[in-house]
Order: sequence, then structure tokens, then C-alpha cells
Amino acid sequence: MNELTVPAPAGLQAKVLSLLARPWLQHTLLALILINAALLGLETSAAVMAVAADPIIWLDKLILTVFVVEIVLRIYAHRLSFFKDAWSLFDFIVVAIALVPASGPFAVLRALRVLRVLRVLTFVPSMKKIVGALVQSLNGMLSIAMVLGLVYYVSAVMATKLFGEAFPEWFGSLGATLYTLFQVMTLESWSMGISRPVMEQFPYAWAFFVPFILIATFTMLNLFIAVIVNAVQSMHDEEHKEEIDAKQQLQQDLVAQMQQLQAELAALRAQLPPKDST
Amino acid sequence: MNELTVPAPAGLQAKVLSLLARPWLQHTLLALILINAALLGLETSAAVMAVAADPIIWLDKLILTVFVVEIVLRIYAHRLSFFKDAWSLFDFIVVAIALVPASGPFAVLRALRVLRVLRVLTFVPSMKKIVGALVQSLNGMLSIAMVLGLVYYVSAVMATKLFGEAFPEWFGSLGATLYTLFQVMTLESWSMGISRPVMEQFPYAWAFFVPFILIATFTMLNLFIAVIVNAVQSMHDEEHKEEIDAKQQLQQDLVAQMQQLQAELAALRAQLPPKDST
Amino acid sequence: MNELTVPAPAGLQAKVLSLLARPWLQHTLLALILINAALLGLETSAAVMAVAADPIIWLDKLILTVFVVEIVLRIYAHRLSFFKDAWSLFDFIVVAIALVPASGPFAVLRALRVLRVLRVLTFVPSMKKIVGALVQSLNGMLSIAMVLGLVYYVSAVMATKLFGEAFPEWFGSLGATLYTLFQVMTLESWSMGISRPVMEQFPYAWAFFVPFILIATFTMLNLFIAVIVNAVQSMHDEEHKEEIDAKQQLQQDLVAQMQQLQAELAALRAQLPPKDST
Amino acid sequence: MNELTVPAPAGLQAKVLSLLARPWLQHTLLALILINAALLGLETSAAVMAVAADPIIWLDKLILTVFVVEIVLRIYAHRLSFFKDAWSLFDFIVVAIALVPASGPFAVLRALRVLRVLRVLTFVPSMKKIVGALVQSLNGMLSIAMVLGLVYYVSAVMATKLFGEAFPEWFGSLGATLYTLFQVMTLESWSMGISRPVMEQFPYAWAFFVPFILIATFTMLNLFIAVIVNAVQSMHDEEHKEEIDAKQQLQQDLVAQMQQLQAELAALRAQLPPKDST
Repeated sequence: MNELTVPAPAGLQAKVLSLLARPWLQHTLLALILINAALLGLETSAAVMAVAADPIIWLDKLILTVFVVEIVLRIYAHRLSFFKDAWSLFDFIVVAIALVPASGPFAVLRALRVLRVLRVLTFVPSMKKIVGALVQSLNGMLSIAMVLGLVYYVSAVMATKLFGEAFPEWFGSLGATLYTLFQVMTLESWSMGISRPVMEQFPYAWAFFVPFILIATFTMLNLFIAVIVNAVQSMHDEEHKEEIDAKQQLQQDLVAQMQQLQAELAALRAQLPPKDST
Repeated sequence: MNELTVPAPAGLQAKVLSLLARPWLQHTLLALILINAALLGLETSAAVMAVAADPIIWLDKLILTVFVVEIVLRIYAHRLSFFKDAWSLFDFIVVAIALVPASGPFAVLRALRVLRVLRVLTFVPSMKKIVGALVQSLNGMLSIAMVLGLVYYVSAVMATKLFGEAFPEWFGSLGATLYTLFQVMTLESWSMGISRPVMEQFPYAWAFFVPFILIATFTMLNLFIAVIVNAVQSMHDEEHKEEIDAKQQLQQDLVAQMQQLQAELAALRAQLPPKDST
Repeated sequence: MNELTVPAPAGLQAKVLSLLARPWLQHTLLALILINAALLGLETSAAVMAVAADPIIWLDKLILTVFVVEIVLRIYAHRLSFFKDAWSLFDFIVVAIALVPASGPFAVLRALRVLRVLRVLTFVPSMKKIVGALVQSLNGMLSIAMVLGLVYYVSAVMATKLFGEAFPEWFGSLGATLYTLFQVMTLESWSMGISRPVMEQFPYAWAFFVPFILIATFTMLNLFIAVIVNAVQSMHDEEHKEEIDAKQQLQQDLVAQMQQLQAELAALRAQLPPKDST
Repeated sequence: MNELTVPAPAGLQAKVLSLLARPWLQHTLLALILINAALLGLETSAAVMAVAADPIIWLDKLILTVFVVEIVLRIYAHRLSFFKDAWSLFDFIVVAIALVPASGPFAVLRALRVLRVLRVLTFVPSMKKIVGALVQSLNGMLSIAMVLGLVYYVSAVMATKLFGEAFPEWFGSLGATLYTLFQVMTLESWSMGISRPVMEQFPYAWAFFVPFILIATFTMLNLFIAVIVNAVQSMHDEEHKEEIDAKQQLQQDLVAQMQQLQAELAALRAQLPPKDST
């Protein structure tokens, strides 16, 4: 969004660019997104739709048209670099979803249309910053998340082999087991719902579930701590930098003054008669 | 409570002000609140009410009268500035609730009368401070709470559209879905109670619930971390300020001594005969 | 345990004191506690009790006798100051429980006999230190725990008044409500188990449960953070003290050397002829 | 893995050592582990096994053979020091499990074969480092985990004695109680599932469960905090060391320059005529 295509944009392109950057347009678009959010909420109410389906659907289509025009203008203005910006791409996809004919196998896309409302994130800088920080904090957790994923996969294969035949609903396939173990990791009904029934058939099943919970929660705890420590660290780094800068300034002043003292002493010495000449 | 109306309070008003500030009055009021708390607790017991309903209700009314008099006096003493102080307003509202005739559509207000007991927070400084800190810590989480709210709203509209018809009790309206998703966010029975039954009809429902839980808990985790980091930060800031002050003091002392040295050296130099005059 | 009674202990008392402090006695007692722990565990097994009830009960009584003798000796040696030490008092109570005839209304005391095993905490210094730290960390959370308690009490009175008649099992008395709200605070079955059934009769019950959960968990989160910040703070304080000590040492060295410089300069100046005398 | 046997490895042994350290071999082995992971996942699918059981089992055996050869070569190369390295031992055990004939009482070992996939941890340095850090962070929590274990054991014996007869499924033996209390500690169905049914027979059972939950979660919270504080501490230590080093460098420079100044002053003084000789 910030970068331009390499050739200096020609007349029309430059005009479109400056138009898109105008605050009143940004504010209008944000207002339209919020109105759209309210409309999409109203659409879920049968009572509201019974009396006002037409204006709501008409307004929804109007707003969607504005969004499509805006995206087309942005693509025209930024050319290919539009697709290199993650946020622009996000805007493009959530608007594009609304254009796919949502029928037959794509009926679920009708529900995904509400993702358009997430464009608020693109238009409110403080929220955009938060989401950026959330995504970046994922980096610091990559290695530990991979360890967790490995433990999770190995446990799933093991549970499928052990309990799959006896409990096909929970452990019948790798997918079913992955879902069940995710539930166990969130501690939801892990014992009364899953582990106790399994233990009735496999009395030693606790030897699988209890270590799995201990390892998974301990690893998640450390994931958690990695995020906290990273956050505290980056806070510190900033703070320390300032502090160290201030300190170094003062100490450099001290060193400078010392050197001045030495220079003055040297001058003093030169002013004195040499000892033998006394 | 601390500020006065602009004109210097006249005789009676000044007297009321000084009366309200007296420690014995504060302690008496705190004692009355605690007695009231106990009475309201006793009122819930049918056994106690069977033998002592009259004195309990009578005492409750007496204490309420004292509270009303106190609030009236405070309004008289502080005039309009009374309503500018959040704590005073809080006191006013919880006492006012008890005066609304709690019958017909307002019967629920009878239960809200117990909110009066929260006035303890106004009277115990250490608790007042804690609540102030809690409310202030909400500021630091505003942006991230808005992101969470947006994700929550979008997910609710989506779930209502997807599962509303099949599961009207859980996802029938936007309100029902918001409640259900709040339950899912707290991880209470999300799988055995909600997601598994839904998956029997929509086998891919996990593709909604699992990402929702991951995003919601990860965002809440970051909300949480924002609070911790803020708390640690403010602790540091205070500490560092002291430390840096101490350090700067010492280093300024050093600089001052250096400058004295230089002055002395200059004096020494002046004392010496110029070189050519030797 | 560490303090003696004011008069210098006489012959026998001094001997008992030095006997109690001997390492071999401490280690023997620790070993006996651990053996007792194992015995109390074995007592819960019907199979083991069928074949070895006699030796187990006999050993248990023997070890109890040793404990009683030890406590009596400690009371003899330390006199009244024995009862001033929290840990000694703890030892006294858990041993005393075993001596109460556990029959009739006191049958439950038989189960409390296992508390004796907690004496391990008294005998292993690293565990004693941890428990001391845990108890001390409670201090830093007192004010916030009081706020939580107040919110909890007010909510309980309110819920009893609102839902008590319709759901006597959960909200029938203040005690029942306090228990139910504790369950809700731990998020256990709060929605499917408690709140949804209540909402069938009181459709607006969510307006009680959702804010209660938000306020209670947010306050608990802050309780939690108070403990973390305290822990980090005390860690810092120690660290900083060392660091600041080292820094001050170095800077005092600098100041000392400066003063020496000034003294030398003064001597130099005195050595020089006064200007007018040249 | 890093240490060699004391005598300088002879010709063949040295060649094997250098072969094992070659990057292409390491990468090949990692690729084989990942392929093996996929194969073991496919083995859980009845549909896949129906059409491709033979090649999958054949490939699995081939990869296992490669692993066995690799382990044998490593034992040959490192001799006894192979068994002193925890990671080598881990590799040895997970490969050895696959060689045990998994029939009769050892049928469960067939499921444990998937543990082989955990060898990824040995081959990816960033993951190996994370696991090392996780294991090390266990050290800092040892004392507090022992306190938690003690409270857990004492509570289990107590619950078995109190509720064992009435609720044999949950509290019938020490093992059953330990499992049930673990469930209660994770807060899973502790009230609706366990405590409320127990309270129907023992109305005061809450006096066991509520304190148990409070003590167990508070101790776990402190375990948690111990890990956080350790992590923050070690982060600080590193940071502080650097910072303090830089600071000491600067201050030592200052001291050095001061000493030079003093030396120069002394030289100056020597250059001057003594006062009395003027």
C-alpha cells in the first residue's frame, strides 16, 4: 500500500493514489464497514428480515459495490505491488469471497462473507498494530510450537493404534484422534467424557492420558512463558537502550573533561621551567 | 469528594464538610455497611427470617436511612462536584437503587440492593486503591480487547448463519450465539457439549470451532500478557527513576568536582610566572 | 524451636535440647515419617489389610508413640516458647489429632491422621522454605483477595435472592450459593450445568453469570499478576542491591581519587611561590 | 556423542566417526524419520492399508533397518560413551522398542513404535535446544513439585479413607483416588461430576474439595511462577552481564585516566623547586 510501482505514476494513476490516501475517503470506508457489520448482524434475525429484507440486502449490495470499486482502484494505483502487501491481499480476499456465487458446494461461502467486517483491522491503525504484534509474537514461539506439534502427532498415532478399534467415534481415524486430543489438551471433559470410558476397557489408559496432559500443558505453559519473556525482553531492550544512551553520554562527558584536564596540566608543565634550569 | 465548589463554602456548608471528613463518622459508616452486609446475608435464610424478620428489616431500613442522610449531606456539601467524582456517583447509585419501589417490572432491583455492600470499597483506602488500579489496567488492554471483540462478533454472525437453523437453542439468534461462543471461549463443555453434537450434522464444524478457540485463547493470552507487562513496566519505571536519579546525582557530583579541579588548575597556572618572563 | 526459655536451661533440659538437635535423631524421625506415610497408604488397600493388618497397625502405633515422646521432649526442652513457633504448633496439632479417640462424632478424625505425614515439611529444610515463601506470598495478595471476597459475597447474596426459590439445590441457601459460585469461578460446567438450566426459567440470567465470570476471572488474574510482580520485584531487589553496591563502590573510588588529586594540587600550589612574591 | 573413547580412534573407527558427522547423512536420516512419520500415520488408515499395506510395511522395515545400522555404527564409533549421552540413549531406546517382538503381553509396544518419530528432536538443533531447556526448567521446580506431591499424596490417603467405601469407582483404592484427584486438579467436572454426588452422601465433602482445589491450584500457580521468574532471571543475567561489563570497562578507563593525571601531577611537583629552597 505504501510502495509505488517503479515507473513514476502517470497522471491518472497519481490522481487515484492521492484520492485513496485522503482522510475523508478512509473515514467513509470505515463507516461503511461498520454499517455493513451492523447489517450482517441484522440479517441473522428472522424478525428483522421479515419486515426489512429488501433495504438490508440492497444496502449490503451497495456497500459491496463500493468495496469492489475501491479494491479495483487500489489495484490500478499500486499495480503488482498491491499483491505484495499482506494487508492489501487480505482486503482483496475478503471482498472477493463475497463475489463468488454462493450456491451448491460453495454455500458455506455465504457465511464467510462476514469476514469483510474484519477490514476494520486494516482501517484502524491501533488495531492494525496489535494484529501485527500478535502475528510477530508467533515467530518467537515457532520452535516450541513445533515440539508441541510433534508430541501431538506422535500421541495421535499412538492413541489411534491403541484405542481406535474400541472407540471409533473418538479415535477411529487420525483426524478423529487429533480432534479428541485437542479437546483433551483444553482439559474439556477429558476424564469423565473420554478417559474414564476408555479406562473401563483399557484399565491402563491413564498411563497414556495423564502423561499426555502433563507434557502438553507443560509445553504449552512454556510456549506461554516464551511469549511473556519475549514481551518483557523487547520492553527492556527499548528502555535499556535509552538508559544506556543517557549513561554513555554522561560518561563521555566525564572522559572529555578529563582529557581537558590533562591538556591543561600539560600546558601548565610546559609553562614551568625545566628542573635542571632552576 | 476532595474538591469544593468554587465559592468558599458558607458557614453551614463548611460545617457539614468538616463533619463528613471526621474519622469517627467514617468508621461508623463502615461499621454500618458491614452490619448491613451481615443482615442482607441473614435475610437469605428462611430459618432466620422465620424468627427475626421484623428486627432485621427494621435495622435494614434504619441503616438505609442513615445512608440516605449521608448522601444528601454530601450532595449539599459538595454541590455539583459530587456528581463529577466516580466514587461519589457509585455511592449515589447503589443507595438510590434501594429507594426504587421494587415491585412489578422492577422486582429484580430487590436483589440489586445488596450492591450497597460494595460501598466498603469506598471506605477502605487499600481496597479503593486496588479497584482504581484494576480499572486503570483496563486502559492498557483497550485496543486488544477491541480486536478480540471484533473477532468475537464476526465469529458469532458466521456461526448463526451456519448452525442457526439446525441448532436454534445454541445458535438461533445473534444473542444466543454470543452466549454460546462465550461459553466456548471459557472452554466449558465446548467439545462434548457443543462441537461434537454440531459435528454430527456438519462434519466440518471443527474447522470453525478449533480455529475460533485457538484465535480467541491466543488473543486472550496476549491481553493477559499486556496486563502483566504493564504492571512490570510501571514497577520498573518507578524503580529505575529512583536509581537513575541516584546515579545522576553521583555523576553530577563527579562533574562538579572535575570543574573545581579545572578551576584550581587555572588558578595555579595564573599563579605561575609566564614562560617568557622566566 | 530455636529460642530457649529465659532461665539458662538446667542440666537435664540442656541435655534434652542437645539431644533433639542431633542430626541422627532428625534423620531417624524423617525416616519414620516416610515409613508412616507408606503404612498409611497401605492401610487403604483392603488386600494388604487382609493379610498384614496386625503388623501395620502395630508399627503405626509404635511410630506414633515415638512422635508423642518427641513432642513431649520438645515441650519439656522449650517450655512455653514451643507454642510460639508456628511449625512446632503444627507438629503438635497433627500428632494430637491421632490421640483423639476417633469414634462417634469424631470418626472423621481417623482420616485426618494422615496429616501427620505433612511433618515432612518440618524436617526437610528446602520444603520448609518453600512453604514459608508460599505463606508469605499470601500477604501481598491480601487487599486484592479482600476485593474478590467482597464481590463473591455480594454476588452470592444476589444469586440466592434471585434464583434461590427456583433452584434450591444450587442457590437454596447462602452456603449452597457460595459453593455454586466457587464452581462457576473455576469455570466447571458453569454454562451447560448451571447457567443454561437457570436461563430456561430466567432468560436474563446470563446478565448475572457473564459479568460475574468476567469480574471474578479478571480479579483473579490480577491476584495472579500481583504474585508474579512481587516475585519478580523481590528477585530484582536482590540483584539490584548487589549491582548498586558494586557501582557505588566504583564511584566512591572515583570520588576518593578526585579528592586525592585535589589534595595534591593544593600541596603543589602551596609549594609554589605566591604570585606577588615573584 | 561429542566425546570420544579415551584411546585415539583407530583407522576404521575414525572413518565411521567422520562418516556419521557428515551433513548429507544427517539430512538423509532426518528425511527418513519424516517419511517414517508419514508412513506410521498412513498405517492408521484402514482405507490406505487396504490398498497399500505391502509397500508401507516394506518401507517401514527398510527405514527401521537403516536406523538399526546407524545406531550400531554409532555404538561402534563411540563405544561406551555412547550410553553416557542422554540423547544417544533416547535414540537407542526408541529404535530398540521396534525390535521387541510385539505379541502377547507386549502387544502395546506396537503402538510405542511411533516414538521413533521423536528422533526428529535429536536431529533438529533448535528443537533439541528447546527440549533441553524444558528439561532444565524442571530443576528449578523440584522443591515446589515435591511439596505439591506431598499434599497430593496426603489428600489421596484422606479421600480414600473418607469416601472409598461409598464411591469405590472414584476413591476405591489409592490409585483410583490419585487419578480422581488429578482430574479434580485439572478442574475437569470436579463439581458436577465428583464433588456434588459425593456431597449428597457426605454433606461436608466440600470442606475437603474446596481447600484441596485452593491449595493445589495455588501451589501449581507458584510452580508456574517459579518457571517464569527463572526464565526472566536467566534472561536478565545474560543482559546484565554484558551491560555491567561495558560499564566496568568505562569506569576502569576513568580510573586509569585519573591515575595518569596523578602521575603527571607528581611529575609536575618533582619539576618544581622545593618551597624552602626558593
